[in-house]
Amino acid sequence: MTDPQIERKLIEIMRVISESDKPIGARNIADELQNRGYNLGERAVRYHLRILDERGFTEKHGYNGRTITASGKKELEDALIGDRLDFVITRIEELIYKTDYDPLSKKGNVIVNLSTVDKDDFDNAIDVMKYASSGGISISPYIKVFEEDSDSRVYVPPGCVNIATVCSMTFDGLLLKSGIPIKPAYGGLIQMEHNDPVQFLDMISYSGTSIDPVKIFLIRQSTSVLDVLDTGNGRILANMRNIPSSAVEKTKEVLKDLENSGIGGVLGIGDSDAMVGAPVEEGMAGILVAVGVNLVAAVEEAGIPVTTSPVSMVLDYGSMTRL
Amino acid sequence: MTDPQIERKLIEIMRVISESDKPIGARNIADELQNRGYNLGERAVRYHLRILDERGFTEKHGYNGRTITASGKKELEDALIGDRLDFVITRIEELIYKTDYDPLSKKGNVIVNLSTVDKDDFDNAIDVMKYASSGGISISPYIKVFEEDSDSRVYVPPGCVNIATVCSMTFDGLLLKSGIPIKPAYGGLIQMEHNDPVQFLDMISYSGTSIDPVKIFLIRQSTSVLDVLDTGNGRILANMRNIPSSAVEKTKEVLKDLENSGIGGVLGIGDSDAMVGAPVEEGMAGILVAVGVNLVAAVEEAGIPVTTSPVSMVLDYGSMTRL
Repeated sequence: MTDPQIERKLIEIMRVISESDKPIGARNIADELQNRGYNLGERAVRYHLRILDERGFTEKHGYNGRTITASGKKELEDALIGDRLDFVITRIEELIYKTDYDPLSKKGNVIVNLSTVDKDDFDNAIDVMKYASSGGISISPYIKVFEEDSDSRVYVPPGCVNIATVCSMTFDGLLLKSGIPIKPAYGGLIQMEHNDPVQFLDMISYSGTSIDPVKIFLIRQSTSVLDVLDTGNGRILANMRNIPSSAVEKTKEVLKDLENSGIGGVLGIGDSDAMVGAPVEEGMAGILVAVGVNLVAAVEEAGIPVTTSPVSMVLDYGSMTRL
Repeated sequence: MTDPQIERKLIEIMRVISESDKPIGARNIADELQNRGYNLGERAVRYHLRILDERGFTEKHGYNGRTITASGKKELEDALIGDRLDFVITRIEELIYKTDYDPLSKKGNVIVNLSTVDKDDFDNAIDVMKYASSGGISISPYIKVFEEDSDSRVYVPPGCVNIATVCSMTFDGLLLKSGIPIKPAYGGLIQMEHNDPVQFLDMISYSGTSIDPVKIFLIRQSTSVLDVLDTGNGRILANMRNIPSSAVEKTKEVLKDLENSGIGGVLGIGDSDAMVGAPVEEGMAGILVAVGVNLVAAVEEAGIPVTTSPVSMVLDYGSMTRL
């Protein structure tokens, strides 16, 4: 680790390069940095670019400029974790804004989570996910597989495969697009009995955390998704969001359209009673959803090592395939 | 698992028995249940007690009544996790209220966390904790060791030892007793450089979570406490609480008394800048503290399996011994 000031500039330069869809030169990088409040001249940018090249984080393409390498992307992602101060709700709201899936054409962006498994475990992981997707404890049976270098937006570690599963925040995006004011409230672990939700065992509010609550519970390995699939009883991951009580009927219509297009997993809509322990304010209603990464929790329970990225992304639902 | 209704009654009966300081009979249990809103006659209580006896959760002492067994206590603790709906801040506020440590006499209750290690690992764990306690990244070098059945309030699993370390909420209790309005705000992981805090890497608000934020980060094993001890650079667990800006001077006085009595670990007091990324509202100040379970994180980093109870308790500081 060198001077933190220099590191900060390096990160910001990598960020500019990674956000450009073609190679970008020092002049344009300096301009973009200026826009972002960094006063760094073209010459200073060149100096920093040489450091990035040496570290293998950027690559020069003759006079066209630089692109970011896979290892640069990884470095940037790690660095941004240390850099960010915004809570997860801010990042979620950005994704919600980008969601534009249309249930009729089955096209447009949904929000997905990326989970990484070893190539050797891939077939087994898919078998478990296929089994789990039949149980009504996840959002959608559609996934997308990313291999190494198959998509420039997704970093896949060597020898691994990434699997994208539909994230429950897709509901928030689609309901918002339908004019329903909605806000993610709590994520946590719920007890299921006879395939019905009976109780939040633990939960964390989406406001005031820098880590997605659902992913915290995923890491704690406290689920028993396979038990729920086998017996109807066990613990799964779920989250709830708030809407005005007056919007319940319209919400049900939108959710019906969605379910017809293969996006489900809603466990309940209504007042406090239906939210199995998550608080609902006066005049508000809740929507309880079995989250998409229950498929991933099942893989983990089956003894297959899997890690899920803390950061979600949007993906065209039309590019995803059925398990 | 039998009928959830019966299970609920069994739990409530175990709770009544565990809260009695001597054996308690069916008659008195029925009365106490009545007080708590459970309408269960003496005969019904006897029926449920037989089930508890059979499961080994309660024990009969002739005509004196029943006591709860070690395995009953464990069962009760597990069950209560599923039973509770209150957020961690409620439980913390109860503990804060019970804190009455006096820095001059070094007596009275502090708040502690309980961590469990295998008996065979005990000596190694203590060595690591001793090393870690020298580094200014925890509250106090005083601990208390609980062996099996050494204290009726503490369940120690067979073959294990529990170690109590001073919890940072002790500060909240003592400052509140000194008339300073204080509220725990965020817990998380901070980056240390040259033994100074530089940045919260991740954090979770104490309001709106049923799990102690610090314990979430402890389970994620994301610390590098040993690196901080060795080099001054790395990641430790910390939390911050808010006080009114006008109370900063008085707070410093109280903290000075505390430090003289061996309770330290304060990393910063002041406005937003000193809180390395945790938000501080206008007119408020923050107190940043390196939490007590950094000692436990160090043990884990040294490769010694250790689990920390989600529930904290109060303990007489005078009964604790120096590492």
